[in-house]
Amino acid sequence: MTDSVEQVSIERVAGGSRSVVEDTVIKETPLTILLNNQELATLLCSPGDSEYLAAGFLASEGLLSDKADIKSITLDDRRGIIRIVTREELSGAGEVLFKRLVTSGCGRGAAFYSAADARVQTRVDSAVTISTHDIFSLVKEFQRHSQVYRETGGVHSAALCEGPHIILFHEDIGRHNAIDKIFGECLLKSISVSDHTLVTSGRISSEVLLKTARRNVPVLISRSAPTNLAVRLAQDTGVTLIGFVRGERMNIYANGWRVTGSA
Amino acid sequence: MTDSVEQVSIERVAGGSRSVVEDTVIKETPLTILLNNQELATLLCSPGDSEYLAAGFLASEGLLSDKADIKSITLDDRRGIIRIVTREELSGAGEVLFKRLVTSGCGRGAAFYSAADARVQTRVDSAVTISTHDIFSLVKEFQRHSQVYRETGGVHSAALCEGPHIILFHEDIGRHNAIDKIFGECLLKSISVSDHTLVTSGRISSEVLLKTARRNVPVLISRSAPTNLAVRLAQDTGVTLIGFVRGERMNIYANGWRVTGSA
Repeated sequence: MTDSVEQVSIERVAGGSRSVVEDTVIKETPLTILLNNQELATLLCSPGDSEYLAAGFLASEGLLSDKADIKSITLDDRRGIIRIVTREELSGAGEVLFKRLVTSGCGRGAAFYSAADARVQTRVDSAVTISTHDIFSLVKEFQRHSQVYRETGGVHSAALCEGPHIILFHEDIGRHNAIDKIFGECLLKSISVSDHTLVTSGRISSEVLLKTARRNVPVLISRSAPTNLAVRLAQDTGVTLIGFVRGERMNIYANGWRVTGSA
Repeated sequence: MTDSVEQVSIERVAGGSRSVVEDTVIKETPLTILLNNQELATLLCSPGDSEYLAAGFLASEGLLSDKADIKSITLDDRRGIIRIVTREELSGAGEVLFKRLVTSGCGRGAAFYSAADARVQTRVDSAVTISTHDIFSLVKEFQRHSQVYRETGGVHSAALCEGPHIILFHEDIGRHNAIDKIFGECLLKSISVSDHTLVTSGRISSEVLLKTARRNVPVLISRSAPTNLAVRLAQDTGVTLIGFVRGERMNIYANGWRVTGSA
């Protein structure tokens, strides 16, 4: 991840004096996605893993669900363009261009969001359970992984976990991008996300909840807070939503039946 | 701001036991902007100040620059729709619909972003200065204002300041929304933002920097980190960019000539 930071010359004010020093800032770079030769979106993201990000973005938007849907992915790293060609024309792609959602907090445009969308959503179908003990140790492990954040204070992390183990981990300046890189890697490597747990460093907005439900991930964990809309959507879609995991404490906002221990 | 939170019933795990308690979560609500009867965008935001948010969003997108541009604003609060009619048809509005930028970290779609866009940007033109002393006391005051964050851990704040004084303050689940509410209030109340200082609780991405430069705000301050692209754009557009203001320390990333004291 050293490629995700850059040295810049800054003035530091400390102890009443001012001096020019070298400091580390996080890199931000645009990535334009061309889907079947049509410009779909430009993501502002951390450099690296562009294929995962693009594939995961399309999966989150509901445009891809399987590796077999993809004919080719070509990255032009220098120009910040990634071209994805699908085996069949995608009927939803036009909607991504025409229906624009500008998101909340730390969010970003998710094309298919609407209250109706949430309701027609297939419910997450998984009987998986996770113990409070595993949740506490996952979050501790997750914190240890978050290297770039500690260096620069400027990235979000996401992890896909199975039981008490982190199996995939990504960091990005965007909390959505970090999650999409996880989903994209799963898609391109044909790793199932069902029956798994997703841990995110960011707050849980309705969009994060919806993209998790759409990928059929049954358990979503954050050290931060969810919004009321995320809580409601978690109840509606069947996602187990856990927030404020700190030390040996946590809040279970929805579908606590998947959480075992501390009865 | 009590309207921006909701009580929900959760399960709390603490000290090895599990109990049902009432907890406070932040509200998130969709606001759809219709510009001249055309659906422009749906923002996910904290409830309240919808007129400011909509006007500020349009100003940040470069579609409005003056109160006189607006013929009417009508809020349908129940349905979450705000209608803005302008005196003249807006040539840029089509672009907002067609060109979609999906943003980074805690970001959101800003329609007109591009490297070229940044370069043709008028440079911020202001000879205003601010002392390190005023910056430290502004940030302390800003922290004291951030009420909802302390309650729920889930909102961003933005403040417009003049010298050592906060003159406008807004909170929202979106860091962009909080800033847009400031810009919108300024636009609708004909308050100038030039020669003022903007303080944000969020990280400074290229988009936050660009929207600040576009409104001709000369000084941008955050307790958090900027990205390398934000630093570069600050240098290019003439914005004084200050980050990591904590206690009596700060980092000046660009245009430090506006910062006096601690020489």
